Amino acid sequence: MKYPEKLLPREKVFRDPVHNYIYVQHQVILDLINTKEFQRLRRVKQLGPASYTFHGAEHSRFTHSLGVYEITRRICDSFVRNYPSKEPGDGLWDDSERLVALCAALLHDIGHGAYSHTFEHIFHTNHEEITQEIITSPKTEVNQVLRKIGKDFPKDVASVINHTYKNPQVVQMISSQCDADRMDYLLRDSYNTGANYGNFDLTRILRVMRPYQGGICFDISGMHAVEDYIISRLQMYMQVYFHPVSRSIEVILSKLLYRAKFLSEKLGNNNILRPHLLMPFFDNDFDIDDYLKLDDGVLNTYFINWLDSDDEILADLADRFINRKPFKSVAYTEETKYLIPELQKLIRDAGYDTDYYTDTNNSFDLPYDAYDPNKKRHATQIELRRKDGSMVELSKVSQLVNAVTGKHLGDERFFFPKEMLSNKEFSKHINNDELR
Amino acid sequence: MKYPEKLLPREKVFRDPVHNYIYVQHQVILDLINTKEFQRLRRVKQLGPASYTFHGAEHSRFTHSLGVYEITRRICDSFVRNYPSKEPGDGLWDDSERLVALCAALLHDIGHGAYSHTFEHIFHTNHEEITQEIITSPKTEVNQVLRKIGKDFPKDVASVINHTYKNPQVVQMISSQCDADRMDYLLRDSYNTGANYGNFDLTRILRVMRPYQGGICFDISGMHAVEDYIISRLQMYMQVYFHPVSRSIEVILSKLLYRAKFLSEKLGNNNILRPHLLMPFFDNDFDIDDYLKLDDGVLNTYFINWLDSDDEILADLADRFINRKPFKSVAYTEETKYLIPELQKLIRDAGYDTDYYTDTNNSFDLPYDAYDPNKKRHATQIELRRKDGSMVELSKVSQLVNAVTGKHLGDERFFFPKEMLSNKEFSKHINNDELR
Amino acid sequence: MKYPEKLLPREKVFRDPVHNYIYVQHQVILDLINTKEFQRLRRVKQLGPASYTFHGAEHSRFTHSLGVYEITRRICDSFVRNYPSKEPGDGLWDDSERLVALCAALLHDIGHGAYSHTFEHIFHTNHEEITQEIITSPKTEVNQVLRKIGKDFPKDVASVINHTYKNPQVVQMISSQCDADRMDYLLRDSYNTGANYGNFDLTRILRVMRPYQGGICFDISGMHAVEDYIISRLQMYMQVYFHPVSRSIEVILSKLLYRAKFLSEKLGNNNILRPHLLMPFFDNDFDIDDYLKLDDGVLNTYFINWLDSDDEILADLADRFINRKPFKSVAYTEETKYLIPELQKLIRDAGYDTDYYTDTNNSFDLPYDAYDPNKKRHATQIELRRKDGSMVELSKVSQLVNAVTGKHLGDERFFFPKEMLSNKEFSKHINNDELR
Amino acid sequence: MKYPEKLLPREKVFRDPVHNYIYVQHQVILDLINTKEFQRLRRVKQLGPASYTFHGAEHSRFTHSLGVYEITRRICDSFVRNYPSKEPGDGLWDDSERLVALCAALLHDIGHGAYSHTFEHIFHTNHEEITQEIITSPKTEVNQVLRKIGKDFPKDVASVINHTYKNPQVVQMISSQCDADRMDYLLRDSYNTGANYGNFDLTRILRVMRPYQGGICFDISGMHAVEDYIISRLQMYMQVYFHPVSRSIEVILSKLLYRAKFLSEKLGNNNILRPHLLMPFFDNDFDIDDYLKLDDGVLNTYFINWLDSDDEILADLADRFINRKPFKSVAYTEETKYLIPELQKLIRDAGYDTDYYTDTNNSFDLPYDAYDPNKKRHATQIELRRKDGSMVELSKVSQLVNAVTGKHLGDERFFFPKEMLSNKEFSKHINNDELR
Repeated sequence: MKYPEKLLPREKVFRDPVHNYIYVQHQVILDLINTKEFQRLRRVKQLGPASYTFHGAEHSRFTHSLGVYEITRRICDSFVRNYPSKEPGDGLWDDSERLVALCAALLHDIGHGAYSHTFEHIFHTNHEEITQEIITSPKTEVNQVLRKIGKDFPKDVASVINHTYKNPQVVQMISSQCDADRMDYLLRDSYNTGANYGNFDLTRILRVMRPYQGGICFDISGMHAVEDYIISRLQMYMQVYFHPVSRSIEVILSKLLYRAKFLSEKLGNNNILRPHLLMPFFDNDFDIDDYLKLDDGVLNTYFINWLDSDDEILADLADRFINRKPFKSVAYTEETKYLIPELQKLIRDAGYDTDYYTDTNNSFDLPYDAYDPNKKRHATQIELRRKDGSMVELSKVSQLVNAVTGKHLGDERFFFPKEMLSNKEFSKHINNDELR
Repeated sequence: MKYPEKLLPREKVFRDPVHNYIYVQHQVILDLINTKEFQRLRRVKQLGPASYTFHGAEHSRFTHSLGVYEITRRICDSFVRNYPSKEPGDGLWDDSERLVALCAALLHDIGHGAYSHTFEHIFHTNHEEITQEIITSPKTEVNQVLRKIGKDFPKDVASVINHTYKNPQVVQMISSQCDADRMDYLLRDSYNTGANYGNFDLTRILRVMRPYQGGICFDISGMHAVEDYIISRLQMYMQVYFHPVSRSIEVILSKLLYRAKFLSEKLGNNNILRPHLLMPFFDNDFDIDDYLKLDDGVLNTYFINWLDSDDEILADLADRFINRKPFKSVAYTEETKYLIPELQKLIRDAGYDTDYYTDTNNSFDLPYDAYDPNKKRHATQIELRRKDGSMVELSKVSQLVNAVTGKHLGDERFFFPKEMLSNKEFSKHINNDELR
Repeated sequence: MKYPEKLLPREKVFRDPVHNYIYVQHQVILDLINTKEFQRLRRVKQLGPASYTFHGAEHSRFTHSLGVYEITRRICDSFVRNYPSKEPGDGLWDDSERLVALCAALLHDIGHGAYSHTFEHIFHTNHEEITQEIITSPKTEVNQVLRKIGKDFPKDVASVINHTYKNPQVVQMISSQCDADRMDYLLRDSYNTGANYGNFDLTRILRVMRPYQGGICFDISGMHAVEDYIISRLQMYMQVYFHPVSRSIEVILSKLLYRAKFLSEKLGNNNILRPHLLMPFFDNDFDIDDYLKLDDGVLNTYFINWLDSDDEILADLADRFINRKPFKSVAYTEETKYLIPELQKLIRDAGYDTDYYTDTNNSFDLPYDAYDPNKKRHATQIELRRKDGSMVELSKVSQLVNAVTGKHLGDERFFFPKEMLSNKEFSKHINNDELR
Repeated sequence: MKYPEKLLPREKVFRDPVHNYIYVQHQVILDLINTKEFQRLRRVKQLGPASYTFHGAEHSRFTHSLGVYEITRRICDSFVRNYPSKEPGDGLWDDSERLVALCAALLHDIGHGAYSHTFEHIFHTNHEEITQEIITSPKTEVNQVLRKIGKDFPKDVASVINHTYKNPQVVQMISSQCDADRMDYLLRDSYNTGANYGNFDLTRILRVMRPYQGGICFDISGMHAVEDYIISRLQMYMQVYFHPVSRSIEVILSKLLYRAKFLSEKLGNNNILRPHLLMPFFDNDFDIDDYLKLDDGVLNTYFINWLDSDDEILADLADRFINRKPFKSVAYTEETKYLIPELQKLIRDAGYDTDYYTDTNNSFDLPYDAYDPNKKRHATQIELRRKDGSMVELSKVSQLVNAVTGKHLGDERFFFPKEMLSNKEFSKHINNDELR
């Protein structure tokens, strides 16, 4: 048998706490898992600093990626059993697309780095571009494995991930409002944080999911399961992903990296810092090999070194991050926003550099978006298929989903050192966790 | 209220996937959690390299330590409600012991370092001694918090952990054949690996556990729950803790550190290695501050650096560890042991340095041990209390436990590079995963 | 110790799949469980004919009643630990109310009979009145147990259940928009049907629930948990309680009893029917003893006898009920309602007596209701307590809850014999499960 | 498509709390579920009086039968995917056996009646023979459905159930030491009682199960999963199935039926009793139609009538059964057995008829049995398949299983009215729940 279709003599399983088992049936999937680029994902936490708030959230992007693969595999199994294509263009599932779908699922996060969201903000990296590069650059082990399938295969896999692949069914499996990626992370983050809100009926959703000309739709008999998924997702955002303490730790991380970069630019290759593997990024002269050497542990190692820095701000921010000393925060609104400069002045008066010791950010999620012809960019809406074959968009039939459609839910917060709370001038502006 | 008894104005909870919530009621517990020594445990995986076999096993000693605290808290709650001491020496529970029990539970693993078991073998550190030192040395934040309770309190906490504390009930809560430590790790490792064998009925065990003069015993009505716990523990050892792949990764780690130490001794402070935070250990001149700077990420960071080492063995072993390329292994017995030198010769002939590329180890567990007057050292046996107040030792009434009492279960294995399996001279000696 | 406060020498536990254990600490609770009126609840299914749709839903009102007791017990434990009353009228929890709360929780469904909702429609019984009578009538074992606590105690317990008890905290524990009754049935029906939608975070809700002057409110920090509970409840109604097949079986049951009553009135004590224990109800001359002899099995026994009836309609309806042959149904709206007479004519033409073989019903739920001064009757709204002690009503802060507040969700359906679907004149009016 | 192979146009699912969903793909399975003989199983509890001890154990033989079907379906799916037969006699799986396996799985308990074990002891019915008759008698709906597959099909299905079918793989799927029947009841009884001891890793067992010439064996890589299943089964027997209170209720039930039969024989068709549907059994002149009219509710209905009997013993035993007033019991041994007549005398002196108010019984289980050439009858032993294809019997490699192999575990107990415990002469013979 040729490599492309090579099935393992016996399927291999990985014990998984969320899906019970992950089933690997193709040699190429096993080979991808064994690449160094994929193994690196073991050293990058899925939720970054959220484990400072939910201590159980210590799982990595490696386990999540296996989960996305597994859900995609199950979707393919269901599609080929129930909706196999008879002829090209009939809108049913062509199982020769399975391998590109599975590889894209497995690799969709391969470019994620240590504390990605914060890191790329400071160092102008971009995990989506890096994902494309890892898949298509002939230097990587991932690319070498993919090329064995066919010379254009890496490009195809990459195009699924950046939504340009020709078959919308494959694209929507990996990336749409109800895709394998989101479904795995909701279940997995729920499982690990212990916050059960992210649970929904995966088996039922997989049963009602079906291919059609335009991509993927859902049998209307499963409307409640899809609705429940949307609400679960919303609740995980509100309660876990947007938790003020996690956002506060991210603020500290961002300020810490910003300070280090500032010092590096100002002072040059400071001996005390010794951030060997970070230097290419400080010097703004890095390639993909440099990027792939970074992980959470590498960054933390430098932060631990920086605890002994002569620069007080660097040492203090490293301490706040490594030893979990989050900033406090309050919510504010358009009406109360005007108070922030006043608070910043009090913080400055207390001796803090407000560039490093205050920040604002907002966390708004769009839990569900129906098509709006006036909008430039929009996610694929969820289509339900009625018994007679006609389609109806989810928010048209679900009052619950309709209630949250097109709405950005979340809040805006102002972050500051906890120590300020004992300042009466300061704390008088805070009531019920809000500025006033 | 004085610090020692200071309860939090409102109890604080931590969401926990295993126990649902961890309830913190004392200021001292919250303060201990916030010390840098305790926060460090977030960066040390509970199961070390086992996550290379069970990818979900990414949880840290931090979450486990909180879990042991929580189980201990529940035991205290049950004891004070059902078996409160009326007068000294009545063998019932004196709740003024609660705080020392809780602190010892929380801190019992505080001295664990990165990849402890392997690390201390190479560098002659000892996590038990370090635990004692972290608790009793005035330099640590942990000690400073404990001293607020009383000048002798750190010593008391330390003595609970090393089994010399005066009250055997407190000692056995934390360390005995059925203690808070083991109960948490079985449940937690089960939960995270997805290997359900470690499940048992914690609620029922807590209900039947009771204090007596000699320590802790169990109401005989709960015999089956205790039996189930012993069997669960045995199964986790057989299936998870002793998994050949995890043991193989530990072999590689051990060889890697051994090589690095060898090179350091031979070559001095090799610039390429740059193991800044490891140098005190290579130089055999470290103190507790040095130790507390190490964690899994720090070691991994150096291993990543070593991938580029000029020393081929160091670079190759680092690659095998970082990129998960385990040695293969086979079980052997006293009868087949004689074949090992022959296999080693073949491995040597294939170009491997057998000092670094082969190893043997055994993993035997003593799932349960009843008192044997002939043995020097033995664990506390499990006593069941009958309705009339008399005691009976567990293996006397449980046929299942009796079947495994005093027996060492496990195997001995020989480890070697996977590449050898394609050598026919070599592989002819392997059948059904055993030497022959 | 006097009976009223008599605690069991050792608390007794009942293994429960939902709450793990039910803890009984008072002699009076154990005695109530052992009364024949309470034991009868073992023979009455909690969800009636819903087990014809969700085969796992075979649990009884007995297990549910224990669950409501257990949740109430936990609420009392939390209240007395965290919010104990210092002086009368301070709005905090007076633990001398515990016993009346526990008894009311345990007995709140004691008057439920076999297939209550349908039965009382035909025979003009009323399970709420019967609950009051079982508790207050000196003839029952329940009353005899309660009287041991105090002469007015039965009346107090009954008044909690009918909402007239003086302490609104006790009333709202058992009956309000987020009470022990609803919380147990959502969890238990979820567990037994396997439809996971009814899951919510009970532990968290119990943590944030607190007493105040007006009854029971919730700390605003638990807003999301309460929101999740409301949504879970809504989803269980939409997907389980209002399932068209269950409603269809209820239609058949109602028609069956109605036919039997009609025959009894027309033909007198028909020998074939032999419904010994039902006769007092046919004769409209029953007392509470007669009522307490009925259960699901008793009614089914008569239905089995009726399978052999000479009356074809009675025999056929008994067959449809006993052997699960539900009517089919379609949804209709105000716009399509006019078609029903036309369909009924076709059914009549096919030889069916439409009085017995067709029906319409609607199932609408009001998932949450905020106070509306214009409405006569309204449920207690859910109040959230802010940090500064002020209150805010749930739908004011939860966009999700606001979306469903005051709305009746559900549908109206027309029921008919399945056989009609092969009639083309008939089936042309049905599309996508709706009349058209 | 002909009926035999007729697949449903779309597979039908039943929500199941244990297996999540039950998948029905063949018209014949759906038709069998809809027969009146199968629907009757809804009215027969799986565990009989055990729900008096574990109140959650209210599930019926209907749900269990669906579960056994589902596990068998999954075994067939795994076999056909991994071990499809290439030619007759190759010891692999011939999927034309699927339908007979599925039907046998679904119908294996079809002859179980109300409180079978006790009932057949008194009335000399035999549920195994009745199962055969329901399947093969042309009068039943079950038979009529099966005959549509083929004239010999009912006989084939029946022969699988009585172990005479030609293909041992099919027989062992439904009935062997590790079969679909036992696997479903352990999981289901565990789930419903809340006693988690019955849990084991079904997915893993299904993965390692494989066909061979002699029937069904297990890959040795799954040894621990099989071992865990054996131990789980043992623990469920010890803790749930043999619970003294359930056995006590069965004693009462047996005495009650025995008394009713005695009265019927002595007094003739006593009007007060009115056991219409039981009369054929009292008269020892029943056919299968009579048997199929019985269920738990029918028997309970007569017991409720008997509460008003003039016969004091009948009325009292009915009360003890219906209102759950179990006898007490003590364990005895060969050594203490001699005390029983003495206790019986005391009971007689207290005014009880010891024929009805005392009993002894033993409950011994043989958790696992390896082949013993000296034994006449033995269960199929569990064979494990090594990598090289050779077989080894389970107890040879599992020390845990070896410890319980061939051993009968359980106890013997003496049952008596609880009231006797206040008699000092009597109670002095009881210590630690044992005779002495």
